[in-house]
Amino acid sequence: MTAIENSPGDLGPLLSPASVAIIGASATPDIISGLPQRILAQHGYPGAVYPVNPRYDAIDGLRCYPGIEAVPGPVDVALVVVNAERVNGVVAECGRAGVPFVVIISSGFAEQSDGGQRQRELRALCDRFPDMRVLGPNAEGTMNVVDTIPLGFSPTINYDRGLDRLIAGDVAVVAQSGGLGFALFNDGLGRGLGFSHVVSTGNEVDLDLADVAAHLVDDPATRVLLLFVEGLAAPERLAKIGLAARARGKLVILAKVGGTAAGRRAALAHTAHDPGDAAEFARAVREGGIVPAADQEELVDLAMVFSRTRAPAGRRIGVVTTSGGAGTWLADDLVLAGLDLPVLSDSLQTRLRALIPAYGSPVNPVDTTAQVLSRGGVSPVLRLLADSGDVDVLVLVATLADAKQLEREAEELTALAARVPLVVYSYTRPSPRSMQLAEELGIACFTSGRRTAAAVAALTRAFTAGG
Amino acid sequence: MTAIENSPGDLGPLLSPASVAIIGASATPDIISGLPQRILAQHGYPGAVYPVNPRYDAIDGLRCYPGIEAVPGPVDVALVVVNAERVNGVVAECGRAGVPFVVIISSGFAEQSDGGQRQRELRALCDRFPDMRVLGPNAEGTMNVVDTIPLGFSPTINYDRGLDRLIAGDVAVVAQSGGLGFALFNDGLGRGLGFSHVVSTGNEVDLDLADVAAHLVDDPATRVLLLFVEGLAAPERLAKIGLAARARGKLVILAKVGGTAAGRRAALAHTAHDPGDAAEFARAVREGGIVPAADQEELVDLAMVFSRTRAPAGRRIGVVTTSGGAGTWLADDLVLAGLDLPVLSDSLQTRLRALIPAYGSPVNPVDTTAQVLSRGGVSPVLRLLADSGDVDVLVLVATLADAKQLEREAEELTALAARVPLVVYSYTRPSPRSMQLAEELGIACFTSGRRTAAAVAALTRAFTAGG
Repeated sequence: MTAIENSPGDLGPLLSPASVAIIGASATPDIISGLPQRILAQHGYPGAVYPVNPRYDAIDGLRCYPGIEAVPGPVDVALVVVNAERVNGVVAECGRAGVPFVVIISSGFAEQSDGGQRQRELRALCDRFPDMRVLGPNAEGTMNVVDTIPLGFSPTINYDRGLDRLIAGDVAVVAQSGGLGFALFNDGLGRGLGFSHVVSTGNEVDLDLADVAAHLVDDPATRVLLLFVEGLAAPERLAKIGLAARARGKLVILAKVGGTAAGRRAALAHTAHDPGDAAEFARAVREGGIVPAADQEELVDLAMVFSRTRAPAGRRIGVVTTSGGAGTWLADDLVLAGLDLPVLSDSLQTRLRALIPAYGSPVNPVDTTAQVLSRGGVSPVLRLLADSGDVDVLVLVATLADAKQLEREAEELTALAARVPLVVYSYTRPSPRSMQLAEELGIACFTSGRRTAAAVAALTRAFTAGG
Repeated sequence: MTAIENSPGDLGPLLSPASVAIIGASATPDIISGLPQRILAQHGYPGAVYPVNPRYDAIDGLRCYPGIEAVPGPVDVALVVVNAERVNGVVAECGRAGVPFVVIISSGFAEQSDGGQRQRELRALCDRFPDMRVLGPNAEGTMNVVDTIPLGFSPTINYDRGLDRLIAGDVAVVAQSGGLGFALFNDGLGRGLGFSHVVSTGNEVDLDLADVAAHLVDDPATRVLLLFVEGLAAPERLAKIGLAARARGKLVILAKVGGTAAGRRAALAHTAHDPGDAAEFARAVREGGIVPAADQEELVDLAMVFSRTRAPAGRRIGVVTTSGGAGTWLADDLVLAGLDLPVLSDSLQTRLRALIPAYGSPVNPVDTTAQVLSRGGVSPVLRLLADSGDVDVLVLVATLADAKQLEREAEELTALAARVPLVVYSYTRPSPRSMQLAEELGIACFTSGRRTAAAVAALTRAFTAGG
């Protein structure tokens, strides 16, 4: 097992605190300082919550304390939502009070022109209290989906705003931009993807994206890490994290901004992170076996395929389609993505012919025609391919506008997906019921041929040498 | 005005028939031969409907006739849903009865190994009755969205199945694969796109995709044509259609299958169309000023941007963002798509600074920060850019998870979009209300940075020399 150097120590209590103080808590609902307490209550957080604000005696039925030193019990995480000019003062108080983790939501630090000095002073406080670890400032908080512990104000974790339902799963998001990190989480939930944790690291005065990623590599609930990177001081740490993930049967997927001059200029103007040297970054990604993603949509696509699909042994794809047209389009997409669509062996074709109508085709794509659905369904066809040894990955092309097909063959498809890499491409907009079924069956489902092909190609590249 | 050679004559009555006979109509609901009559009734078709089937006296309250010759009134379109072996017989009867248009839904022709002879006989009937034009066989039908006349069985035009609501608009779909054509229509509707017509041409024994496209170029309701092509006998006709569209201020967008060996093999095995010579096709696309699309998703993206966005004069993009992070990502995407993000002039930057907080940036992307929303909104910023002459296209990066921003600035944004090319990229999943607003405002809205950039790049390329 690869050891991860520079490990930040146990971040468990940061993500699963037994008690949370909210410094700067407000009784005004719907402002940033008023939201964290309400969102914790929405999610039924069972731990202790201590609002801290000298202006109130109580907020929403909870006693409010004038300062962190007045809080009666131990505090795992202090969430700081005071104005920028008051942050360093309350952080020093947290240090003196022995608070192990401070999450600073407040902005007004290195990300703005007059905040550099303030961030340097904050850094000095981190040095002065080395047992206190700081996330932020200018962070959007964290969401522990497995234990349903929300620390922050994002609409995407707020049932009164963007959140519809949580789905616990094995995908973790670590993002320097909280807005984008939580947007990614929201996109994934909308597509039925299950998450373990979302962590926004903000300006990274102390804990950085690599620290959090290194912790999550050892998190038992997490199997796929999505990293959303603006810049990292030491990209070579990524390679170590990637290798450690691989050694544990996990995967790191990374999207990085600043690849163009305009993007670099924007990153420097807009964020506290220098995008850094692109070549150094690319080397770390390659050496760490990290999967690069081009954008937010592809991050979710790849999370979907890595979270739900078995590792393939090669890049030979078998396509089974109920629509000749859609199968033809996908064949192009798969080949353009660098995958192979072998012509199936004669003996396999002969056996396939027995299962499909005369006007179908057993070549590859195997065109079962829609008629197969009123015969034995697609599962017997998929099973023949899975058992043949002719292909490494199965792609089923179907129309999920209606959930009937998935419903009828749910058991067989689940059994197949448990033993071979199986991905579904719906050439029609899936019904909500179909999406729900795909989620229940744990089968990765896409609605674009090109994106199906890109996801399958990334999957095969990640698990096959020179794939 | 460019004349289109080989024009197929007036196809008006095919798409807007005053009367429809359904030959092979069935009283059994939910089978292909039972659906067309029920779907016409769902949509409140006001014309005459004549079910034809010797087995029934009436179907769903309409008198049923034993043969087309027994139908008492004139018939604009005969929709044929009988079994393959009976098709040519009823088509001959239509020819003798003087029916001007026959749409053959039935399959079992050149697309299957034993159907070649049947299709040749059908072709001979077309030659024998030159005044009768035939669409199909193996077609999925047509949908006139403007006049709400559905001819076919697709779930996407069936309110009891996939159809939620129709949106009339200026986008027409012509597809050789009916499944994919109607799936495209369904995808577009789901994204708020308005359509004029959907036409599936099937095996094209007589009317082909180019015939229908040539007609739609002159259709007053249609401004954007989406062509979904497997193969065309004479691709050079596409160039003429593309140029004719341009001369009328319209655009043709085309996706073509069979670009790889596997796709070509699949196309030959699965469809009646030979994908043909790729170079010849590419030349027709280029010469006709046709916009190529890579897949189904990009077809809808491009339809969205061309349907809703004014033509730009150049490729200088101004980005206005409420999220520094999302703006940075989009900057990369735009540059990688071949667009320019000029640094704004000093005088413009000075005027922008007055509208945005100190921790924003006026460079380009113009980072207004989310705080601008509680000040004057993004419209004054967009207006300054629009008036500056520094940029040709505006992209607004916003979070539409909440519709408030669009709601508050609806009037200003509509006014802006009426005079400059304006596109919105939401880095969060838009709420249904936001999508509805974007549709009402007529502003193209995307949820992926890469796809926003690809759409804007296609738009600028289409309207600028060497763009």
